Amino acid sequence: MSETPRILVIHGPNLNLLGTREPEIYGATTLEEINTEVTSAAKEQGAEVEFFQSNHEGALIDRIQEAVSWADGLLINPGGLTHTSVTLRDALLASGLPVVEVHCSNVFSREEFRQRSYISGIAVGVISGFGPTSYWLGLHALLDHLER
Amino acid sequence: MSETPRILVIHGPNLNLLGTREPEIYGATTLEEINTEVTSAAKEQGAEVEFFQSNHEGALIDRIQEAVSWADGLLINPGGLTHTSVTLRDALLASGLPVVEVHCSNVFSREEFRQRSYISGIAVGVISGFGPTSYWLGLHALLDHLER
Amino acid sequence: MSETPRILVIHGPNLNLLGTREPEIYGATTLEEINTEVTSAAKEQGAEVEFFQSNHEGALIDRIQEAVSWADGLLINPGGLTHTSVTLRDALLASGLPVVEVHCSNVFSREEFRQRSYISGIAVGVISGFGPTSYWLGLHALLDHLER
Amino acid sequence: MSETPRILVIHGPNLNLLGTREPEIYGATTLEEINTEVTSAAKEQGAEVEFFQSNHEGALIDRIQEAVSWADGLLINPGGLTHTSVTLRDALLASGLPVVEVHCSNVFSREEFRQRSYISGIAVGVISGFGPTSYWLGLHALLDHLER
Amino acid sequence: MSETPRILVIHGPNLNLLGTREPEIYGATTLEEINTEVTSAAKEQGAEVEFFQSNHEGALIDRIQEAVSWADGLLINPGGLTHTSVTLRDALLASGLPVVEVHCSNVFSREEFRQRSYISGIAVGVISGFGPTSYWLGLHALLDHLER
Amino acid sequence: MSETPRILVIHGPNLNLLGTREPEIYGATTLEEINTEVTSAAKEQGAEVEFFQSNHEGALIDRIQEAVSWADGLLINPGGLTHTSVTLRDALLASGLPVVEVHCSNVFSREEFRQRSYISGIAVGVISGFGPTSYWLGLHALLDHLER
Amino acid sequence: MSETPRILVIHGPNLNLLGTREPEIYGATTLEEINTEVTSAAKEQGAEVEFFQSNHEGALIDRIQEAVSWADGLLINPGGLTHTSVTLRDALLASGLPVVEVHCSNVFSREEFRQRSYISGIAVGVISGFGPTSYWLGLHALLDHLER
Amino acid sequence: MSETPRILVIHGPNLNLLGTREPEIYGATTLEEINTEVTSAAKEQGAEVEFFQSNHEGALIDRIQEAVSWADGLLINPGGLTHTSVTLRDALLASGLPVVEVHCSNVFSREEFRQRSYISGIAVGVISGFGPTSYWLGLHALLDHLER
Amino acid sequence: MSETPRILVIHGPNLNLLGTREPEIYGATTLEEINTEVTSAAKEQGAEVEFFQSNHEGALIDRIQEAVSWADGLLINPGGLTHTSVTLRDALLASGLPVVEVHCSNVFSREEFRQRSYISGIAVGVISGFGPTSYWLGLHALLDHLER
Amino acid sequence: MSETPRILVIHGPNLNLLGTREPEIYGATTLEEINTEVTSAAKEQGAEVEFFQSNHEGALIDRIQEAVSWADGLLINPGGLTHTSVTLRDALLASGLPVVEVHCSNVFSREEFRQRSYISGIAVGVISGFGPTSYWLGLHALLDHLER
Amino acid sequence: MSETPRILVIHGPNLNLLGTREPEIYGATTLEEINTEVTSAAKEQGAEVEFFQSNHEGALIDRIQEAVSWADGLLINPGGLTHTSVTLRDALLASGLPVVEVHCSNVFSREEFRQRSYISGIAVGVISGFGPTSYWLGLHALLDHLER
Amino acid sequence: MSETPRILVIHGPNLNLLGTREPEIYGATTLEEINTEVTSAAKEQGAEVEFFQSNHEGALIDRIQEAVSWADGLLINPGGLTHTSVTLRDALLASGLPVVEVHCSNVFSREEFRQRSYISGIAVGVISGFGPTSYWLGLHALLDHLER
Repeated sequence: MSETPRILVIHGPNLNLLGTREPEIYGATTLEEINTEVTSAAKEQGAEVEFFQSNHEGALIDRIQEAVSWADGLLINPGGLTHTSVTLRDALLASGLPVVEVHCSNVFSREEFRQRSYISGIAVGVISGFGPTSYWLGLHALLDHLER
Repeated sequence: MSETPRILVIHGPNLNLLGTREPEIYGATTLEEINTEVTSAAKEQGAEVEFFQSNHEGALIDRIQEAVSWADGLLINPGGLTHTSVTLRDALLASGLPVVEVHCSNVFSREEFRQRSYISGIAVGVISGFGPTSYWLGLHALLDHLER
Repeated sequence: MSETPRILVIHGPNLNLLGTREPEIYGATTLEEINTEVTSAAKEQGAEVEFFQSNHEGALIDRIQEAVSWADGLLINPGGLTHTSVTLRDALLASGLPVVEVHCSNVFSREEFRQRSYISGIAVGVISGFGPTSYWLGLHALLDHLER
Repeated sequence: MSETPRILVIHGPNLNLLGTREPEIYGATTLEEINTEVTSAAKEQGAEVEFFQSNHEGALIDRIQEAVSWADGLLINPGGLTHTSVTLRDALLASGLPVVEVHCSNVFSREEFRQRSYISGIAVGVISGFGPTSYWLGLHALLDHLER
Repeated sequence: MSETPRILVIHGPNLNLLGTREPEIYGATTLEEINTEVTSAAKEQGAEVEFFQSNHEGALIDRIQEAVSWADGLLINPGGLTHTSVTLRDALLASGLPVVEVHCSNVFSREEFRQRSYISGIAVGVISGFGPTSYWLGLHALLDHLER
Repeated sequence: MSETPRILVIHGPNLNLLGTREPEIYGATTLEEINTEVTSAAKEQGAEVEFFQSNHEGALIDRIQEAVSWADGLLINPGGLTHTSVTLRDALLASGLPVVEVHCSNVFSREEFRQRSYISGIAVGVISGFGPTSYWLGLHALLDHLER
Repeated sequence: MSETPRILVIHGPNLNLLGTREPEIYGATTLEEINTEVTSAAKEQGAEVEFFQSNHEGALIDRIQEAVSWADGLLINPGGLTHTSVTLRDALLASGLPVVEVHCSNVFSREEFRQRSYISGIAVGVISGFGPTSYWLGLHALLDHLER
Repeated sequence: MSETPRILVIHGPNLNLLGTREPEIYGATTLEEINTEVTSAAKEQGAEVEFFQSNHEGALIDRIQEAVSWADGLLINPGGLTHTSVTLRDALLASGLPVVEVHCSNVFSREEFRQRSYISGIAVGVISGFGPTSYWLGLHALLDHLER
Repeated sequence: MSETPRILVIHGPNLNLLGTREPEIYGATTLEEINTEVTSAAKEQGAEVEFFQSNHEGALIDRIQEAVSWADGLLINPGGLTHTSVTLRDALLASGLPVVEVHCSNVFSREEFRQRSYISGIAVGVISGFGPTSYWLGLHALLDHLER
Repeated sequence: MSETPRILVIHGPNLNLLGTREPEIYGATTLEEINTEVTSAAKEQGAEVEFFQSNHEGALIDRIQEAVSWADGLLINPGGLTHTSVTLRDALLASGLPVVEVHCSNVFSREEFRQRSYISGIAVGVISGFGPTSYWLGLHALLDHLER
Repeated sequence: MSETPRILVIHGPNLNLLGTREPEIYGATTLEEINTEVTSAAKEQGAEVEFFQSNHEGALIDRIQEAVSWADGLLINPGGLTHTSVTLRDALLASGLPVVEVHCSNVFSREEFRQRSYISGIAVGVISGFGPTSYWLGLHALLDHLER
Repeated sequence: MSETPRILVIHGPNLNLLGTREPEIYGATTLEEINTEVTSAAKEQGAEVEFFQSNHEGALIDRIQEAVSWADGLLINPGGLTHTSVTLRDALLASGLPVVEVHCSNVFSREEFRQRSYISGIAVGVISGFGPTSYWLGLHALLDHLER
């Protein structure tokens, strides 16, 4: 690992709407605000972060493959792809990088089809339900994992 | 709602092939012909329509997000994504717009995996099995819904 | 087919209560109003309609068998029998007439046992969720089907 | 809520063995060390914590009921009860307190019967897979939740 | 059977909270009030009752085993153990005493995992949904059963 | 509610045979005897009851619809329709009246297909397994419910 | 048993259409022809038969209850009710008469929902797939059973 | 078809024990007696029969393949292979001969794993539950089928 | 039972390979060594044993049928047939002899399809997981059972 | 391992009733008699045994944890906890000691919910169905396992 | 591996009928022609092949066991045993030889019970759907695998 | 078909990583090497091939639609989309071209969710498990299919 850990933060489909739609489920913070908050939290801990959001499964996979050359870990909120995408799972697994999965809402108390995750089985760990704070917690967890 | 209701008509993957492939299942009318027919039906009822077709799930989601700023309702034939896409469901739900789901073929008399729809549960209603007429019926149903 | 298409409109159990009970689910229009509206819509399109409502599965089957001698198509809202009646399915299938299935409420967003329909698999198509308008749409769809 | 938030940290069955058994799954840190670490983290954030471990489901429930009179939130690692105990769920729900569920190992990548949690559905959120750090993250998440 | 029928009334985990927590589900009557009411109803019918509540599955089983030496019947609200405890079932079955199962809430209209009962299959009968009155009805049902 | 509560007691298919067939399951009391017993119990409590039995699902629904104009509550033993009739459920729900479901035998210890009830989910409560006494208990429960 | 065995032959819903509809599945023989054939076969073997057909489940049950006073056995083709009617099963069981179940088509090579029969489990035996001959075979089987 | 229809009667594993073991399930008639009875019934109807019994699935398949050169139909009681043997199904199907499946006991009222038959789906029809008479009925049904 | 109990020890398919293949699962002892060991253990306890191994399901059934005339009990390791053979179950059941089922490996910790046994339900008992010692334990258990 | 192998024999809930209740299922031997018998069998083989019975899941876990410091193996009859307790499984696994699971009754021929064991998957092996002899066999199997 | 790789080609039940029965599914080539073709393809690649066909599962297992002494790989079309035979799986696994599974028809587009294969999980790979060419492809794949 | 058969070879998501990631599962050959090898194999057999890889499901569908105008067949490794994409299935089906499905790893011996393929049911055939050789075999199979 490089001295300054570098993290790619990935936001899946529809997460660009965070803060503007259905705040009763996802909270009122926008994605930009989350990114700002994560950036300063990373700086405090001597880490660097990049961000990527897309509504395209293929674009997410392209980016994960690209990150292999420079990133030390992946922090991902896969959105609705969590429950349906084997290819995203394959891309994350193939990256060989440690993955932390986060969700703003608590997926375990929502529709039944949201109980199954193709990502959790290959992640270091999962954080679900704490709104934007889920990202902050996930960054800590990932950096903590990288230190060991 | 604006005085002239504006509708985005969304055609999912493979529907650009309508009329040219498997006419015994999907009928012989092309997508262009359907769009023409829907346009004049809309005009008759004092509504405006725009059309969007894509084989890319992400592009469909981008377009739905974009439509939030101007459309009053969504008329969608999600094609094969009907049965697999939680992200499409999330995008439709997040749009806050009324959604009418249409299918040319009767999905209920086809393969078992086509019996499950991620879209129906969040739609105003569903129309299935009437060939290109499904779109015409769906437009009526959506405009009728908007009027109330 | 006769020159003037003749349609039997069948209302299953409890639909005689339409407009008087649970309007938040089924709407405030009474069955009589629906029938009046369907009659004039039929007249406009040069079709004739008859109506039949019963809470008795057997009476519905008797009527379907009787209609074989004069009707060109069946428009049916099977109510709760949708989900449980193989004999109704058998009667519709044996009639050899085209069947269009309609529901006022969107059955796909209600209890799970309402997701299964014994009728959909043998219908020309299904329309679900548009209140009384579902009948109007269904009539159009059926007449359109008969024209081809 | 009192000015100084008070948290009850609950360790379920077998967690008294942490650090001494199966370190390849659960890590080498002992429960005592975890408690020490959580205590100082709490102190830093102006919170108070108490700890309770038991192998007895009933004792856990008694303690949860007792905590209603003084605690502001519950941080719980239910161990193997996660997957089987409706009564623990009922006790947590009846407490009316916010609950954060944590697991040291990533339960989602273990046996299939560990994929089901009776607790997640009623928790604020879930943190799984980060070893002893899961507790630290959970404390943060819970305090953050209490602040809002 | 002794001349004066003697009944052990068993309250499972969390039922000590009755009347103080979630009154919208379980009603506002406390367990003590229920016991008082059951005691006087028993007296009216020439029966004696004892009460036992515990959050410990093992303690409930111990008590059931002890009751074999003096009781004529068991009236039990197993709480959350209803759905998970084979050992409670075994203990009730081994007692050889007639068992009546009661629930304050109507478990049949709650979460799906509450639809399965390990106790119902070995009970004389089940009463569910009438609040504290469920106990009163259950006592009657049990005494009526003993008389025959 | 009228001052004197009025109850319609409904007996589903085959219950006219009570007391004459399979007494080892259903007891030796005839339906007439049950009705007599329920009548005097009602009188004692200042209530009025009417009775209706039919082997025809449709006739039961007709009667429930008719009762809406005068009854304060429904006491029903749906017999075999319990497990198969969505239309009966719909009729009971549409009546807007409180429903208490009773069974003479303990359906929970019989064939697996008797474990599912379409009625329980919309009933105030369920009483199962106490022979003719189930009706007596159900009447009490229903009157008790009406009083609150 | 009386000296001349008396059999009630019951035809369920839609079987009045036999021979006139879907002959490729059910054969070209009409119900009347079947009855004639069964009558003469019965005469040859010194038995008497009566026939009953109805599309009404309730009417079938009424008739079965009535037959208890004079019939020695029941030969039934339950039609579509085979797969859905617990009440028909209950009526047959309550009759205490031996039941033979017949089907003209081979239900085992048709839709999956036709694989389940509520009747088979309580019948002496089942005959399925031999067209009108199924009745003839069933009569023989039933008379043979009565002789022993 | 030859003028004199020739039938191969096949008895699956354990059927050589008929009449000597578990007569309460399978009846007291021996296999030899059944064969004698079937032979004379065949003679009466101008047909010829051969018999084959084996406990070896492979031997049954060999014999079915051999019978293709001379037999006009197959009457088979597959015994326990009914529920497990895809190869037996394949052999029967490949023979191109009409198959009638018979069972002495009523398999539909026994263990659940006996409810599935790999043979029924490809048979002309099924006869189940009439003891040795099942063979006699099956022979009639098969000859009747061959005549058409 | 004869004075000297006589036991048939049956080894199912592939067990002739014991000790030569996959010793990490099945142990290094050969089948011959097991037989020798079982023989002397039998002798010590005054019992006689015969052995039979075959890869042919039919041959196993033939042998079980033959053993009825002389054996007092059956000790069987059905190998892979455990999970698939209804006919073997039928043969064992028809023998009327007490059956003890043994497995060298612990089938409960292997593939899921090995969790189901058609034999266990009709056996006196089951012993699984102790290598060749399973046979020795099974012999003891069977002789112990015969003594009572 | 110490020279004299030391075994903890654990009896789960309700097993203290052995010999006094339901002897037709569990046999007439009391738990004390079983313990006496196991003690002398152990002595014969140069082993030491201790016994522990509890109806409390938590107490069983406490004892298993305590035994780690002195025992060489565990012989356990988990009673009804076999089918529901993940925590017991976790405790046994965490002990690092070889476990042999025994049952007096043959759980495989009882209710379906008794077919699943959380313990079998981590045990050396399983013995089920031989009454009190199951313990004796289990002791042998465990000592035999320890010797290797 | 010997210098000249030696392959045993195994044809399961009913495959001796290839080319003579159901050519629309299995093609018109006979088994003999396939064997001839495979032989010359093997010769071209410097390999030797032997062939074995049987309708007896046991005979197939015997032959697989025998082949261990001389063969370098197994090419098998298990026919209907693919879906039902655990013992065949065990024999192939025990052989320690690389296995290639082939099917002439595409089993994935046929009946649902043909979707499960006990063999695929232990094979090097699977080839399905190319008629007799499947064997040719399988031979290549197997020899290619042996070379590495 | 054109004289020189033209094949489009399609590589699904993540397959651009072949040879560089997880070689223990997918082998060490890169995608470029595979393409080179397939090209020369095609040339030998007088065929032309084009290649397309994308991580975007929509791009794959676009390309399949485009290929309809020139290609004679499709050779596809759908990667993770195999198990989740109905739209890919629809596109392949709509193309009207013969499809051969290949996988480098043996998907049948991996995670359970990889056992289901939406593609296999509409493919000519499937080849799975032979590393890069799967492509070579698939090309042969496809050309062989085109020749007939």
